[in-house]
Amino acid sequence: MPTGSKTYEIKAGGGIAKRFSAALQKLSSPLQPRVPEHSNNKMKNLSYPFSREKMYLYNIQEKDTFFDNATRSRIVHEILKRTACSRANNTMGINSLIANNIYEAAYPLHDGEYNSPEDDMNDRKLLYQEWARYGVFYKFQPIDLIRKYFGEKIGLYFAWLGLYTSFLIPSSVIGVIVFLYGCATIEEDIPSREMCDQQNAFIMCPLCDKSCDYWNLSSACGTARASHLFDNPATVFFSIFMALWATMFLENWKRLQMRLGYFWDLTGIEEEEEHSRPEYETKVREKMLKESNKSAVQKLQTNTTESGNEHRPEERNSGVYLRATGKALVRKSRQNEAPFERCESSLEVISFGDILQFREDTELKGMWKRNVTEMQGVEDDEDKLTWKDRFPGYLMNFASILFMIALTFSIVFGVIVYRITTAAALSLNKATRSNVRVTVTATAVIINLVVILILDEIYGAVANWLTKIEVPKTEQTFEERLILKAFLLKFVNAYSPIFYVAFFKGRFVGRPGSYVYVFDGYRMEEASTATGCAPGGCLMELCIQLSIIMLGKQLIQNNIFEIGVPYMITVGRVSVSPSHAPRVSVIQFGFVTLFVASFPLAPVFALLNNVIEVRLDAKKFVTELRRPDAVRTKDIGIWFDILSGIGKFSVISNAFVIAITSDFIPRLVYQYSYSHNGTLHGFVNHTLSFFNVSQLKEGTQPENSQFDQEVQFCRFKDYREPPWAPNPYEFSKQYWFVLSARLAFVIIFQNLVMFLSVLVDWMIPDIPTDISD
Amino acid sequence: MPTGSKTYEIKAGGGIAKRFSAALQKLSSPLQPRVPEHSNNKMKNLSYPFSREKMYLYNIQEKDTFFDNATRSRIVHEILKRTACSRANNTMGINSLIANNIYEAAYPLHDGEYNSPEDDMNDRKLLYQEWARYGVFYKFQPIDLIRKYFGEKIGLYFAWLGLYTSFLIPSSVIGVIVFLYGCATIEEDIPSREMCDQQNAFIMCPLCDKSCDYWNLSSACGTARASHLFDNPATVFFSIFMALWATMFLENWKRLQMRLGYFWDLTGIEEEEEHSRPEYETKVREKMLKESNKSAVQKLQTNTTESGNEHRPEERNSGVYLRATGKALVRKSRQNEAPFERCESSLEVISFGDILQFREDTELKGMWKRNVTEMQGVEDDEDKLTWKDRFPGYLMNFASILFMIALTFSIVFGVIVYRITTAAALSLNKATRSNVRVTVTATAVIINLVVILILDEIYGAVANWLTKIEVPKTEQTFEERLILKAFLLKFVNAYSPIFYVAFFKGRFVGRPGSYVYVFDGYRMEEASTATGCAPGGCLMELCIQLSIIMLGKQLIQNNIFEIGVPYMITVGRVSVSPSHAPRVSVIQFGFVTLFVASFPLAPVFALLNNVIEVRLDAKKFVTELRRPDAVRTKDIGIWFDILSGIGKFSVISNAFVIAITSDFIPRLVYQYSYSHNGTLHGFVNHTLSFFNVSQLKEGTQPENSQFDQEVQFCRFKDYREPPWAPNPYEFSKQYWFVLSARLAFVIIFQNLVMFLSVLVDWMIPDIPTDISD
Repeated sequence: MPTGSKTYEIKAGGGIAKRFSAALQKLSSPLQPRVPEHSNNKMKNLSYPFSREKMYLYNIQEKDTFFDNATRSRIVHEILKRTACSRANNTMGINSLIANNIYEAAYPLHDGEYNSPEDDMNDRKLLYQEWARYGVFYKFQPIDLIRKYFGEKIGLYFAWLGLYTSFLIPSSVIGVIVFLYGCATIEEDIPSREMCDQQNAFIMCPLCDKSCDYWNLSSACGTARASHLFDNPATVFFSIFMALWATMFLENWKRLQMRLGYFWDLTGIEEEEEHSRPEYETKVREKMLKESNKSAVQKLQTNTTESGNEHRPEERNSGVYLRATGKALVRKSRQNEAPFERCESSLEVISFGDILQFREDTELKGMWKRNVTEMQGVEDDEDKLTWKDRFPGYLMNFASILFMIALTFSIVFGVIVYRITTAAALSLNKATRSNVRVTVTATAVIINLVVILILDEIYGAVANWLTKIEVPKTEQTFEERLILKAFLLKFVNAYSPIFYVAFFKGRFVGRPGSYVYVFDGYRMEEASTATGCAPGGCLMELCIQLSIIMLGKQLIQNNIFEIGVPYMITVGRVSVSPSHAPRVSVIQFGFVTLFVASFPLAPVFALLNNVIEVRLDAKKFVTELRRPDAVRTKDIGIWFDILSGIGKFSVISNAFVIAITSDFIPRLVYQYSYSHNGTLHGFVNHTLSFFNVSQLKEGTQPENSQFDQEVQFCRFKDYREPPWAPNPYEFSKQYWFVLSARLAFVIIFQNLVMFLSVLVDWMIPDIPTDISD
Repeated sequence: MPTGSKTYEIKAGGGIAKRFSAALQKLSSPLQPRVPEHSNNKMKNLSYPFSREKMYLYNIQEKDTFFDNATRSRIVHEILKRTACSRANNTMGINSLIANNIYEAAYPLHDGEYNSPEDDMNDRKLLYQEWARYGVFYKFQPIDLIRKYFGEKIGLYFAWLGLYTSFLIPSSVIGVIVFLYGCATIEEDIPSREMCDQQNAFIMCPLCDKSCDYWNLSSACGTARASHLFDNPATVFFSIFMALWATMFLENWKRLQMRLGYFWDLTGIEEEEEHSRPEYETKVREKMLKESNKSAVQKLQTNTTESGNEHRPEERNSGVYLRATGKALVRKSRQNEAPFERCESSLEVISFGDILQFREDTELKGMWKRNVTEMQGVEDDEDKLTWKDRFPGYLMNFASILFMIALTFSIVFGVIVYRITTAAALSLNKATRSNVRVTVTATAVIINLVVILILDEIYGAVANWLTKIEVPKTEQTFEERLILKAFLLKFVNAYSPIFYVAFFKGRFVGRPGSYVYVFDGYRMEEASTATGCAPGGCLMELCIQLSIIMLGKQLIQNNIFEIGVPYMITVGRVSVSPSHAPRVSVIQFGFVTLFVASFPLAPVFALLNNVIEVRLDAKKFVTELRRPDAVRTKDIGIWFDILSGIGKFSVISNAFVIAITSDFIPRLVYQYSYSHNGTLHGFVNHTLSFFNVSQLKEGTQPENSQFDQEVQFCRFKDYREPPWAPNPYEFSKQYWFVLSARLAFVIIFQNLVMFLSVLVDWMIPDIPTDISD
């Protein structure tokens, strides 16, 4: 895959486009990082897989720089992986040595010091100065340099993060505009004006039994006004916009990936040859041991005795250091025996000549690989795990995941119980009664946040453990399954309290006179008025919940885990796998898209977070962590599926937030079907049902009502028949009418947005034209 | 891509699986076509692109059979395409010669006679005996032989058709079971029993003004019973099944395609080098002519003068015949000039040696292709059509498609008007009054069918013409756009009357006392009772419409167009492009999936049709048509996207058919919310609203009612408030309740089935395990 000698130019479009792009380039020049051009914006070398036979094709000026840094380290890693250390077991490369605790780690060294004096320049220092500092947060990322230094996988990750961050800019702008629109129209919002009007004396039913009094709706005026900020028609537009934005983002990522793949010569690569993981091999060996009274006895025995020999440890302290690429092997101070001598000595003689030779070998091997593996496959048919062997692992996985999800749900439920009981307890005491709900809500959200943060870490470890139990065959499968499990658990963890508030809270309250009780006389919690929910729509509470969890999670995880923990890691010398890095951002992508209808400022916060996150991650990779092995990948793998899954799910979730949680549909229905003059005047009155207080159950009346007038009817928020109707307190016709409208909105919204997404998907070609030409 | 000498075995799973598959093979042996095994079920040759340099890799036993028939014809076609016939214009291959009417056609010859005497065997005859006859309809298709003879593209088409047909078998069986379930439970269906009960005297409002009388609901008893056959809970299950079936089918097709691609060595192939279409080149040349006062003048002039010379025709009558592969070039009897002599003579000397040489060339060219094309790209930047040049074509396309769709809709509307007016006219006459609706419905469906058949042909031609106007650059783009346009037009054409019946008919009737009138006093047509719609649910009429159009379309298109027309084509010597073959089946796939909820027998009819269709198409290709050029493709291209689009759309359409068209939801709602004893007793009464006949508008009362009792209230099917309610004839609470239930069902059904489809998609790996190992 290195580059040949012929170059050609990428066309830059016609006259106007050319001038425009030139102007753009000039304008953005202060934003460009000052790194030496890799000259691949305009010119592209023709590439061809390196082959020693065709050495004449390549423009080799200097042997030491022909393969770049990441490639060299990958080659050395490959050699280490393949070097056989014993006759019997042909997979005893460096990975097995590490897995068997003979070596502790093997990783490439950094180029040099990133904070060395000015005159001696290296890529690491360049990366630090132009990328891995907060001071350069406004600059584009030097993606090519990152790729050159860290390899394709990390390059792709930062390219993804960069694109995501830049896509957040327009959505932040529009989110702020939507928010400002809410601020600007707050005075014109008729329902909140009506609620605040002291003359409209809506006497509301008490919010708890006995100790709560009747109350006047105008006392919830402030929160009603605040809720208009997030619950106005602009948010409907915004959530359609964000659904399309998600599609656009994914489409553009496909294009960027294609473009990077083209410039980085990833288009033609086959999947990396997949070695079995050492854990898998061990498992297979164990299985064969068990079956030793079957036909394969002989072969197995030779295998096992030899491998038994190998594993006896031996006293060694020296580290192996390969100067060709600066690869360090950290030897554990343990006792090992002779067989590895041969292995190590062979590791030590690798030079550039070997690298060329090796690449040639690899290609030949690649060509006949299929053949060889198939032959092996025929030879030892029992050498793999069948479904029967895997069943306990799968069962364990399934059960554990179910258990974890149940745990999450029960914690959410526990917090609900906490809220209900604490609220009840506090309202008995006169001194604390006044600010019961503020206290309860605030403490509950904080409990939620803390639980989410703790479980997040636990679930990460559990997912890892579960995937190990599963014993996937290859490194790639391992990673995919780990990501999927960890994402599933963390997603449920982060979002279940939010889903509860969005769709369930306050919907099982019952009605005055027949409330729903849980645990012996605790009323189900109402959508609380302290957070401005009940009379002004439930959206406000969702918004608060969402913003606290999102901001809290980001701030704490960034500060404590991401800044604090890496130091510990460096001290404790544990390496962090780069493949898990996107997880935080993907959960955040969910916050940005799934509930954007209720919180238009989410993109802004995500943007601010990401600007920091990019530099933070960069700093971590450049200054704090061991340099990771350069890994070659074509794409971001399963992350893309997860992202597009979130994108699709967000359409449904936003449809329901607008239809069910917000007051958008009831207002529309009122305006066009019930209002006498086509305005929202009278809307508040329309949404409140009547209740005859004489029908309150014995012992639930307010104990000593200090309400200044005689109360005959109190009001509550629901569409029910009045007490004087033939069937009092049944759902009224309006209820079913509004429900039909809500559901119709969900259907229309979902299908419309899905259709538009498909259209956007179809209109944006996956392959940029300048490459496909 | 030919095969090398090494072979390896495909593993066939473990012990039980092996024995099972062996038994299966034995059982199905009478179904297997008796063609020589290509031995690729178990053994797979290792493949490598053919390269003359590495001749030692291949197991060349005989020069004449090393490349198979399709490959040879492809190679010759490639040579003909590339042979330059003049110095100036390097694209003057055989395609341009045909486009400029110098040759009439170029196609490979068939192997021999398919009905020659027994002893002389060839592939064509083998295909005829084992595949292209109705007598062998029960056998599997010899896909490998088809591919060998006709090339990959046609092979894939028949593989697709075969898989589709075999997938129709289980769905036919279940469809028949669902239908039989309907037959079996017809006696237990309470609503239809209630309707037929003479004692329940529901006096219905007249169906037309003046001339129609009141009528008794029990007179529609027969149709109500018939409609139960298609409108029962089993159809809900069946439509979920069919949605998953569609996903399963597409997943299995992906697998089969992957498997065929593996055995046919299509996995590694790059996209075919894409030559510009001659029409595109001509257009570019024209454009350059226009711009002749710009910088490129000189080059252009040389170009145009030379090409001007070339196009002068010349008298020639001889055909060119290449014995190496039996490729015929049909010379038009027109006057051509000298420059082509050189071209033809070079065409005539092609032999096997050339073919090898040629393939080697192609590979080298492939390697440097990118380079060369890019170089050219830089050289003459104006040599392509910009968006500005294409704009008129696109506009024309857009306008025409809109016009065609509008035309379709207006024809559907015209048929509606025909029904309304004819019904009104006929009911004035006493003699014809009795069977008005039968006459009208029958004639209208036939008109619809005829219009669909005619427009189908017209739209095919229009799509072709429109795509030509667009001047796509390559053959592939041309085909894709043509398919997309033709499919869109034909889809709208075939389905718009059905959509009308399913979702719109009878929904804008108004109510007694305030009917909706169109055109000066014609009442909007009601969902007609003659077809058993109004009182028994609208599903019956949809079912009739669907079956007549589907069956009629299949029968007539198969018999007239597919059997009749090919003879005309053979006589008229026009070649048929194989790429359009799937279109008929895809439209049929739509019939099978889109409205399966209303017509569970659709898969059976589709199955019967396809069994014939496979052999019919086969016969056409083997015996009647010129042998088409062997085309290599990896997949069925845009057809897959269309099929999966239909699959997705079918989920929504079935959800709506069940929710809106059928009586499923109202029955459920009645049973669980209104019924006193949890049964459907009283359902019919519940769905009928009351109308006070004294409120009938002046002049619309039945003229001379012969109804034997005094009528005070008549009934009509709707959920409206009774005349004695405070707001008579408004939609009642039940209406909104049922509507909410219907819409909720749509949401649940759609999301559930979509989720299950994703699950199925995810559970079935795209690559079969025996290949990926």
